[in-house]
Amino acid sequence: MAVLCKPAIAVPDHVITNEETLDLARRLHGDHPQLELALRLIKNTGVRKRHLIQPIEVVLEHPGLAERSLVFEAESKARVPAVVSRALDQAELEPQQIDLIVYVSCTGFMMPSLTAWLINKMGFRSDTRQLPIAQLGCAAGGAAVNRAHDFCAAYPDANVLIVACEFCSLCYQPTDLGVGSLLSNGLFGDGIAAAVVRGEGGTGMRLERNASYLIPNTEDWISYAVRSTGFHFQLDKRVPGTMEPLSPALRALAEQHQWNVGKLDFYIIHAGGPRILDDLSHFLEVPSEAFRFSRATLTEYGNIASAVVLDALARMFDEQSALDGHHGLLAGFGPGITAEMSLGSWTAPEG
Amino acid sequence: MAVLCKPAIAVPDHVITNEETLDLARRLHGDHPQLELALRLIKNTGVRKRHLIQPIEVVLEHPGLAERSLVFEAESKARVPAVVSRALDQAELEPQQIDLIVYVSCTGFMMPSLTAWLINKMGFRSDTRQLPIAQLGCAAGGAAVNRAHDFCAAYPDANVLIVACEFCSLCYQPTDLGVGSLLSNGLFGDGIAAAVVRGEGGTGMRLERNASYLIPNTEDWISYAVRSTGFHFQLDKRVPGTMEPLSPALRALAEQHQWNVGKLDFYIIHAGGPRILDDLSHFLEVPSEAFRFSRATLTEYGNIASAVVLDALARMFDEQSALDGHHGLLAGFGPGITAEMSLGSWTAPEG
Repeated sequence: MAVLCKPAIAVPDHVITNEETLDLARRLHGDHPQLELALRLIKNTGVRKRHLIQPIEVVLEHPGLAERSLVFEAESKARVPAVVSRALDQAELEPQQIDLIVYVSCTGFMMPSLTAWLINKMGFRSDTRQLPIAQLGCAAGGAAVNRAHDFCAAYPDANVLIVACEFCSLCYQPTDLGVGSLLSNGLFGDGIAAAVVRGEGGTGMRLERNASYLIPNTEDWISYAVRSTGFHFQLDKRVPGTMEPLSPALRALAEQHQWNVGKLDFYIIHAGGPRILDDLSHFLEVPSEAFRFSRATLTEYGNIASAVVLDALARMFDEQSALDGHHGLLAGFGPGITAEMSLGSWTAPEG
Repeated sequence: MAVLCKPAIAVPDHVITNEETLDLARRLHGDHPQLELALRLIKNTGVRKRHLIQPIEVVLEHPGLAERSLVFEAESKARVPAVVSRALDQAELEPQQIDLIVYVSCTGFMMPSLTAWLINKMGFRSDTRQLPIAQLGCAAGGAAVNRAHDFCAAYPDANVLIVACEFCSLCYQPTDLGVGSLLSNGLFGDGIAAAVVRGEGGTGMRLERNASYLIPNTEDWISYAVRSTGFHFQLDKRVPGTMEPLSPALRALAEQHQWNVGKLDFYIIHAGGPRILDDLSHFLEVPSEAFRFSRATLTEYGNIASAVVLDALARMFDEQSALDGHHGLLAGFGPGITAEMSLGSWTAPEG
């Protein structure tokens, strides 16, 4: 059985608080006709602070896509290996025991992705499979867990390393002035997460059933425009309302597994924004408190894209509240609009 | 058992012959100090013609990354569905019977990838899994086959649709003047391929064992520089020599399967260039004729990136030479430098 072990997380040192974000919005967009709306939306995110790979003054200056691509590569190489090492340690595995690396990142583009460099740099085997995913956005954290689960279903003694590297600040576009962009500028943060799915052994979430769901005809609600200045994040204002059409898919998945989606023991949910969590709590009839891990990620780091679900899961490990046999749900949401959902049971073998 | 059914292929109408390519190189680079070398390399590709989504005069004018991204999206949407429909027909499946779409493309970037649009447009189920891969380059055709194989190993009655959409002409960079760039400008073509891997039933290559291999410390031999003008393809001159270090991995994989890599009945190999095929034939001790499908792809279409292996396989179907039980190898090569390898047996159930 595939067990998702404790994720390792790193956020960079440069911090911007929500107050500083609001001040910045007032300063940069004092004459924006919808400034008050944008400020209210940013206040309502529930984000207290975010972490950035560069000082905010540097983030605000767009140096061109070529330079940003070099920063993305340099910062990835500087920051990812330590997180991967911790994730391996926490799973009690060596690099040579990893059979597949699923590398997800939607905030910079490299070809080859970092997988080849990691294999060479960190001593993974030359026959380690590489699965880089760049186009599932925030849903990619859930997708990585699900593809790792599938891989272990195919090869029961295999181990999979998941890495999510998101430097959202490198997608800041000073010329994008819609309210959705102003909100995004106050919502997204930078972060790195890694976790191992062990085919045998391990403490964590035993992955039992996964599924994907695409909300019909919403493929242009979350998207990138790819321009000479890089990726321009385009967020439709209908996105915060997507939990209503998604919750039946979550409910149905649980029913297939003979579980009641409203009565699970733990929930690891992508914290795209506060409305996502509030609505999901409402539609699944789950107490708000059940989403405390996701809410803590959002509050402490902002939306760190594909890394959110792994960070929220790490917080649950830290709380040490999960008991052997507890039932839970992990779900990532992103462009498509796609949900990547996973059901599993806590497993904590006797020491 | 997972069976890779007959691929459907489409190449666009605009054709450029090798003679026209050479004339163009002479006209554009008359004063290039290494023009003669570039011309010789282009002549030696063995490419007779290539197909392009736009007339060559349009290809030569770089309209900016934003415009190219729009062309990539529009041309993908205009051309992919018909190829997918044919692939489904050839596998005797309906869209509703597909459980996973593996979509590979390294020559344009969309988020979400085309998977979401295809699901909405072509009537795939809302719970179809989406696996878009953009960062494995030419190896992605082999990777798609291997991930489809793994998925069917996990879910034996599942069916997987593979789509490879490569518009290499949209990565033409008029300011890249190295010999490797001039050669690439004469080597790559545009093409679309789709194929179904059926979990049960089907005629084609029954997938039995797959593996990946990364040649150590070559991650910067094939790469993109990502700039305001888009993806700049960077090809190290050592790449054509990579079959020597790769062939032991192919040999070892066959041995694990109790097969002799030099004595298989069919070979479907990524035709990155003529030297790749010549060297591999030498190192695997396989007659040159065994690579005739890949050679035909290279001759007729140029290097169409991740679509090459599917096109070569379609040519083998057309030749009708494979017999039930024949053993074969499919291998894609790309950035990393990564090989994605698959062993399988021809299966042609009685009608």
